[in-house]
Amino acid sequence: MSEQNSENHNDSQAINERHRVRMERKKAVIDAQIAAADDQPIGIIVVNTGNGKGKSSSGFGMAIRAMGHGMKVGVVQFIKGALSTGEEKFLRRFPDEVSFHVMGEGYTWDTQNRERDTEKAQLAWQQARTFLADPSIGLVLLDELNIALKYRYLDVHAVIADLLERPAMQHVVITGRGAPEELVAIADTVTEMGVVKHAFKAGIGAQAGTEW
Amino acid sequence: MSEQNSENHNDSQAINERHRVRMERKKAVIDAQIAAADDQPIGIIVVNTGNGKGKSSSGFGMAIRAMGHGMKVGVVQFIKGALSTGEEKFLRRFPDEVSFHVMGEGYTWDTQNRERDTEKAQLAWQQARTFLADPSIGLVLLDELNIALKYRYLDVHAVIADLLERPAMQHVVITGRGAPEELVAIADTVTEMGVVKHAFKAGIGAQAGTEW
Repeated sequence: MSEQNSENHNDSQAINERHRVRMERKKAVIDAQIAAADDQPIGIIVVNTGNGKGKSSSGFGMAIRAMGHGMKVGVVQFIKGALSTGEEKFLRRFPDEVSFHVMGEGYTWDTQNRERDTEKAQLAWQQARTFLADPSIGLVLLDELNIALKYRYLDVHAVIADLLERPAMQHVVITGRGAPEELVAIADTVTEMGVVKHAFKAGIGAQAGTEW
Repeated sequence: MSEQNSENHNDSQAINERHRVRMERKKAVIDAQIAAADDQPIGIIVVNTGNGKGKSSSGFGMAIRAMGHGMKVGVVQFIKGALSTGEEKFLRRFPDEVSFHVMGEGYTWDTQNRERDTEKAQLAWQQARTFLADPSIGLVLLDELNIALKYRYLDVHAVIADLLERPAMQHVVITGRGAPEELVAIADTVTEMGVVKHAFKAGIGAQAGTEW
């Protein structure tokens, strides 16, 4: 082995060894966290908020994750009803596994009628309540609920009361910009989706498959 | 009508009218953006990064969105292979619509062997390349690719070259913490998922349906 090759070989060995030690430490930290966490299964409340992409699609991803574990899923779409999205088309293939309720009428900036929006949001919440009272449903997705709360179509305290009374094992995923503080306070996991870059703002139209 | 009632009525009318005007303006802004955006369908690159939840689940949500539009999907899971997740279980029900490749061996902090990880990542990338060369696949999900790039199991420039050579209509979704700058630079939509609150850190174990 030439001196150069031998140096390269030693460098590469050193990198691999540093990597091994670092990963060993990481494993120890993660194992300790897992050991410390309560292993009892329990339903959690997940909130996806912020101005970036991925709030609803992450909720739908969690829905199929739950379905993969044999759970039934209830979906209520607030606000977004006018769009027949790819997710809806896809999930309607599984009527025994997914119950779907779409509020209808589309975005409030299309209807411009606050009273009608409020009435529809209230009706959608009644549907949400039936899911939240049904222990056979493992995950409830309340898509764009935060928008309905932001415009005060629904009262946040009434909504929280219903959420907290749900079956112990039921998961809830709530999406939409501007999650109210009160909701963040009672949630288990909250993620803020921030915009780094958005194709739409760069002048690329909304694309089937990724945007709707 | 009593004076009090009449005042309440006027208040409520004023709120509704302000709402109407605000929504009208919002609609005008959104309509203008839609008009300005290029309506030609084109494949985009979406990157979900950051330390928060929802990067992978959003990618899987986009996968079913694409399936709802009749597209075929190719999934390569980098790093995460050891876990049989709910998404995988679910998507394996549709072998004609979803091609699935899992790198195997699980998290690198379990294996602690850099050379073996590199080899496996390279093999997984070969699978990714076959998807990226196939115009019949409408969306390619490269789950946790950013981790493989971060540990330099794969060369970011080689990966970018392959991404840019893909069919014009094909969407790509890339997930994982620490997306490299070079990748952000060529992506169309980039979202940073930030942690506001995490159930796991609060001592609640990972839950089937929401976490795996």
